[in-house]
Amino acid sequence: MQLVEHRWFQRLRYIRQMGMASLVYPGAVHTRFHHSLGAAHLMGTALQVLSGKGVDISPEEYIAARQAILLHDIGHGPFSHALEHTLVSGISHEDISMLIMKRLQESGHFDLERAMAIFDNHYPKKFLHQLVSSQLDMDRMDYLNRDSFFTGVSEGVIGYDRILQMLVVVNGNLAVEEKGIHSVEKFIVARRLMYWQVYLHKAVLSAELLIINILKRAKQLARQGTDLFGTPALRFFLYEQITGAGLSSDIKVLEQFCALDDGDITTSAKVWTNHSDPILSMLCTMLMNRKLYKIKMSNQPLDQELEAVKANLLRYKKINEAEWPFYAFSGTTSNSTYNENDERINILMKDGSLKNISDVDNALVNSSMTVPVRKYYIGYQRVPHDNPTVSDL
Amino acid sequence: MQLVEHRWFQRLRYIRQMGMASLVYPGAVHTRFHHSLGAAHLMGTALQVLSGKGVDISPEEYIAARQAILLHDIGHGPFSHALEHTLVSGISHEDISMLIMKRLQESGHFDLERAMAIFDNHYPKKFLHQLVSSQLDMDRMDYLNRDSFFTGVSEGVIGYDRILQMLVVVNGNLAVEEKGIHSVEKFIVARRLMYWQVYLHKAVLSAELLIINILKRAKQLARQGTDLFGTPALRFFLYEQITGAGLSSDIKVLEQFCALDDGDITTSAKVWTNHSDPILSMLCTMLMNRKLYKIKMSNQPLDQELEAVKANLLRYKKINEAEWPFYAFSGTTSNSTYNENDERINILMKDGSLKNISDVDNALVNSSMTVPVRKYYIGYQRVPHDNPTVSDL
Amino acid sequence: MQLVEHRWFQRLRYIRQMGMASLVYPGAVHTRFHHSLGAAHLMGTALQVLSGKGVDISPEEYIAARQAILLHDIGHGPFSHALEHTLVSGISHEDISMLIMKRLQESGHFDLERAMAIFDNHYPKKFLHQLVSSQLDMDRMDYLNRDSFFTGVSEGVIGYDRILQMLVVVNGNLAVEEKGIHSVEKFIVARRLMYWQVYLHKAVLSAELLIINILKRAKQLARQGTDLFGTPALRFFLYEQITGAGLSSDIKVLEQFCALDDGDITTSAKVWTNHSDPILSMLCTMLMNRKLYKIKMSNQPLDQELEAVKANLLRYKKINEAEWPFYAFSGTTSNSTYNENDERINILMKDGSLKNISDVDNALVNSSMTVPVRKYYIGYQRVPHDNPTVSDL
Amino acid sequence: MQLVEHRWFQRLRYIRQMGMASLVYPGAVHTRFHHSLGAAHLMGTALQVLSGKGVDISPEEYIAARQAILLHDIGHGPFSHALEHTLVSGISHEDISMLIMKRLQESGHFDLERAMAIFDNHYPKKFLHQLVSSQLDMDRMDYLNRDSFFTGVSEGVIGYDRILQMLVVVNGNLAVEEKGIHSVEKFIVARRLMYWQVYLHKAVLSAELLIINILKRAKQLARQGTDLFGTPALRFFLYEQITGAGLSSDIKVLEQFCALDDGDITTSAKVWTNHSDPILSMLCTMLMNRKLYKIKMSNQPLDQELEAVKANLLRYKKINEAEWPFYAFSGTTSNSTYNENDERINILMKDGSLKNISDVDNALVNSSMTVPVRKYYIGYQRVPHDNPTVSDL
Repeated sequence: MQLVEHRWFQRLRYIRQMGMASLVYPGAVHTRFHHSLGAAHLMGTALQVLSGKGVDISPEEYIAARQAILLHDIGHGPFSHALEHTLVSGISHEDISMLIMKRLQESGHFDLERAMAIFDNHYPKKFLHQLVSSQLDMDRMDYLNRDSFFTGVSEGVIGYDRILQMLVVVNGNLAVEEKGIHSVEKFIVARRLMYWQVYLHKAVLSAELLIINILKRAKQLARQGTDLFGTPALRFFLYEQITGAGLSSDIKVLEQFCALDDGDITTSAKVWTNHSDPILSMLCTMLMNRKLYKIKMSNQPLDQELEAVKANLLRYKKINEAEWPFYAFSGTTSNSTYNENDERINILMKDGSLKNISDVDNALVNSSMTVPVRKYYIGYQRVPHDNPTVSDL
Repeated sequence: MQLVEHRWFQRLRYIRQMGMASLVYPGAVHTRFHHSLGAAHLMGTALQVLSGKGVDISPEEYIAARQAILLHDIGHGPFSHALEHTLVSGISHEDISMLIMKRLQESGHFDLERAMAIFDNHYPKKFLHQLVSSQLDMDRMDYLNRDSFFTGVSEGVIGYDRILQMLVVVNGNLAVEEKGIHSVEKFIVARRLMYWQVYLHKAVLSAELLIINILKRAKQLARQGTDLFGTPALRFFLYEQITGAGLSSDIKVLEQFCALDDGDITTSAKVWTNHSDPILSMLCTMLMNRKLYKIKMSNQPLDQELEAVKANLLRYKKINEAEWPFYAFSGTTSNSTYNENDERINILMKDGSLKNISDVDNALVNSSMTVPVRKYYIGYQRVPHDNPTVSDL
Repeated sequence: MQLVEHRWFQRLRYIRQMGMASLVYPGAVHTRFHHSLGAAHLMGTALQVLSGKGVDISPEEYIAARQAILLHDIGHGPFSHALEHTLVSGISHEDISMLIMKRLQESGHFDLERAMAIFDNHYPKKFLHQLVSSQLDMDRMDYLNRDSFFTGVSEGVIGYDRILQMLVVVNGNLAVEEKGIHSVEKFIVARRLMYWQVYLHKAVLSAELLIINILKRAKQLARQGTDLFGTPALRFFLYEQITGAGLSSDIKVLEQFCALDDGDITTSAKVWTNHSDPILSMLCTMLMNRKLYKIKMSNQPLDQELEAVKANLLRYKKINEAEWPFYAFSGTTSNSTYNENDERINILMKDGSLKNISDVDNALVNSSMTVPVRKYYIGYQRVPHDNPTVSDL
Repeated sequence: MQLVEHRWFQRLRYIRQMGMASLVYPGAVHTRFHHSLGAAHLMGTALQVLSGKGVDISPEEYIAARQAILLHDIGHGPFSHALEHTLVSGISHEDISMLIMKRLQESGHFDLERAMAIFDNHYPKKFLHQLVSSQLDMDRMDYLNRDSFFTGVSEGVIGYDRILQMLVVVNGNLAVEEKGIHSVEKFIVARRLMYWQVYLHKAVLSAELLIINILKRAKQLARQGTDLFGTPALRFFLYEQITGAGLSSDIKVLEQFCALDDGDITTSAKVWTNHSDPILSMLCTMLMNRKLYKIKMSNQPLDQELEAVKANLLRYKKINEAEWPFYAFSGTTSNSTYNENDERINILMKDGSLKNISDVDNALVNSSMTVPVRKYYIGYQRVPHDNPTVSDL
């Protein structure tokens, strides 16, 4: 509980779990703080279920596994994808979580040795890591349900209680009893649905790309020495070139990182709507007035459409080569329903054998679902007169 | 509304939707009356959605489609499977629904011409029939959610509101817009889960087989002239050999059929616990005290296990050849996740083309899911001393 | 668990908790079996909460209290009010529950000594009885929520989990911590709402009065020696004059009582629609076709209205004096929001004192709410041509 | 819909409905944006119900009433109570809403004449105002349910759908049909419960008082010319003395006001944790590390307790007279279950008469509930070593 009270954990209260998704789903303003507590709660239940089935879990391991899941997202910054692409380069949020755990350990106030071993999969009992990070981990179990609840997309709701009851450990690895296979199938389908319908909703994607572009532009300006409003922590990351290496080696940098939350970005963007740089000002105004990029998505590349869009934009505005990424751009995204390269979902058959779920006879999940689906998209600014007057008041 | 007040429709108040499933899920005591009203409600919503998309639906068709779905289950008897195997032979409940509609039409109080045409798929606008009976019909849409709710198996919950919003009509046939494909996938997976986990729950299957055996035995005794307690309607079906043909040709027979509900069966079985025939008495006692058959299920035939079970039973009791079906028996059941031979689920792609869902790129539902899965089972009486004293008080 | 498997307990599967209320709320078909299990579950939680607060509860008491609540309704017959007024006279369902517990005790298969002492309030630890029967007992806690759920009247939902957490024992009596007072208030208001809105819904009241009249008429006919269809158990209670004394003294009578469930009444009423007695036939037809009595309710007596109604009916039908109770009648019903004569709800104040909730400063529940509210009603048959043809087909 | 897209309305996305309550209820992070949309939705339903009952509502009035409720909260600043006590003085959020509507009207992009008349109760049809602001308005109807949902305090859930169905207009005023009286009672009790249990939860109150103190201290420092980090808008309100009059007379001031949201306050407080003023730094650190004031509440004044607390604090720290309000203080709060001075809740009796709900016979709400309940509280900093080390890392 002392971990929860630490200011670095309390910081998660100000980082929304779904970033900009609330622009589409107004209820989706729940935070990583709430999610982390929820995942730790599920971990407690899962460990009790396994204990009840005779799996050997010591009191120390029980605590460590809950610490690991509680802290699994502590390395997230505000609008993670934006940050990972712009403010800090070359380091994943998992690695930052690990850095923060190390620092907490060094502070002498917490004993996180076991939790860290579990988190980065060096602990002998592999199933503990798999509860923290795998295709059936407590992280996904919590966020799928939580995101469904707060977005109101009831179809993402999963029967996590039943899945938890069906967990077993076989040869040190996490598995699911055969009679729980339909619940696992439903979980995988719910994840698939949430991915394509919610997380990759065009307007959600659009808002994320807008945030990324705002920070990219701000960073360009900072590099040129232009003055920008910002909290000290945000200014630090705008004016310095921080890499993963810098974050690991210098505690001061980590302190700055842990001073960032959503508010640093959104209040600055609000102030920047009045910045003298026309592009930064335009992007921030788009965000504040919810005039997002228009997005088109397809199974095929959209090169031609992008050219047409650019031609149309040029009728309204001069845009030079370096500026195009802020006006019109293309990208791809991909996802697989079941990822065979990730930690697999193993089913304990009634005859005692263990099978990858995609190898079970008559299972819904089969090899065709392990192929990632790739989507191409383009994004572009709406032409000025699409919706002219209201917010220009 | 006058239809709802008719005594033949009111009769559905006394027929539980899930038969004996309440022996396993105590809340699952909801009735076909409730389900029929619910399905009619969904039909109203679906027709409004389609109307709103420009599909031509006349006021008469609106009424007729709702009549058709309201009456789609009116031909169900108590414990349908039991009845269809024993009391009335050679006629499905759909055909009986049709007979009843005809009779209501002949009474002169209702105009069901269009509803009947829709129900048995002779109406030109095919999509109206498909709303009543197809793989995405209002019947399934209602009962899946209703059964989930009343059993408490939350995993069967489907996002029917979204599916309804995505319905379209293409060339006179029902289809679903491409962006609704994930909701349809989730619907199919929920159905799959409910089938294997709930409808085919061992104890549910066991109770249904017990009811069938009780009626089979009662009918054997009736044929031998033995006296059996029963309401006049039940006695009629026990002592006469009624076929589908008889039901169609004689209004008196149909009247008797419509006088039957769950109470006729359960009160008689309760009285028969004291019948002098030891087998009938035993079977009814098993039902009343919830001492069901033990069931084993497998992907392979269980012939050897059945022999072993019989040998064991013989150690406790003399059983002759004709009696075996009441003590130990085998059977099979099968289901396909997506049935290609049934009315297919068509997806209206963004490019305007129409595709069977199993042909859509990257769809979850593919050809492997159209193969029916067959399960073998055996059922047998527990040996007398498994649980000896309590209910023999 | 053996108690649950006993046939007398399994019988509760066929007795609906809310009697005829499903004629108004089609989902309200849940059974006393389900309710009894639910109440026993709440009892387990309540005992754990109290134990956790240091209240001394032995393992034997834990079992006994759950037995007592599990069996608290076992003495209910089908449509209790009907039965208590007609088939068996001079004994409450609580007394019958006690008789059944005694009989189970005598059978030697169960040890119910403590459970019986708790049930009839002879056990030294009074709070155990209060958990079974008082204004905050597990019975009401369960049925209010369950009835809300199955009727869909969401306003009856109570926060039972919070109330359970707030329970304490002071001087051997059940009380609620002061900070739980608002939850108790909401519970009392929910009960008040369910009483007047659901339990006393005109159509629900009407259907209950109809059932009572059907059984009254059947019993009149039986006394005259007229032949009536019925299960042996129902015929026993129709043709014999059974009193509470008879039920207590003769185990055979109790056996007959325990053979009765809703099906005995409804199947007989269905058969009686064709009985030669015009009144019995009429009443049963009203029930089967859902043509209930019309009910008027008022804070004042409705004598004049009753006369007017009778005069109107006489225009259509000859009715002699003895028959009037089956055609038009008056009655009263009363309820108090908080009953001071019943076991009071005590609040443990923060200063350690104990107060009756109606004495707490600023409490919602005050003395004015302890006065019973009385309502007068009349019920009468609709005149024949109100809705003439449909169900006379 | 254009109103919703306006940046001043979009601003509500960044203002949490329940302010600091998420420190206690982690899910309670929903925004005024979400609430305003919800209330507008309820308004639409209410108007349709009334229309369906024959109340004359023109299309223009339909739009205006929805505009009025949509904008009823647009004058809220971040942490309203804090702002109203510190940053802007002498003007309520309702008055600011009115100012903003006027400004939007003047912009020429919206027609809000009728909406403004409804909002400030100058429109002839009084019931339209009462739907916006009264004891049964759409505002409370929405926020009670929404706050219950997001806090997880299920007891606050109200049956708003039923209340909406029971609305009527009598002599131009809003009333409720008699048969809806129990639903209204339940609504009033839910509000009472939410007030005392959630809105006045000690830790919620404590966090609000902390925010107020932070802004008071910041304003003191600003007045002394001390430099303080902040967005331009926040600095404007810290360094200028803005009154309601200033807000009304100068559009620039209103623009600044509309540039404020929660992020301005929380990011500044975060930066201020490092400010050189020890009191400001201490208060902000308390907020960020969730080390709230300790609160005691009572029906009597707590003067003695406050003295004791002060004496104890002095053992650890020198505190001068001017600083005491930041360390230890007292206050009062009051609420009445039913406020007779506010717009009353009128019940349309079955006999056609109209009664104030507190005058209805046997109603739950009676005159004793109209007396406001007053509570006294003290708040104070925990002594330094209560919980020493964790967050001082």
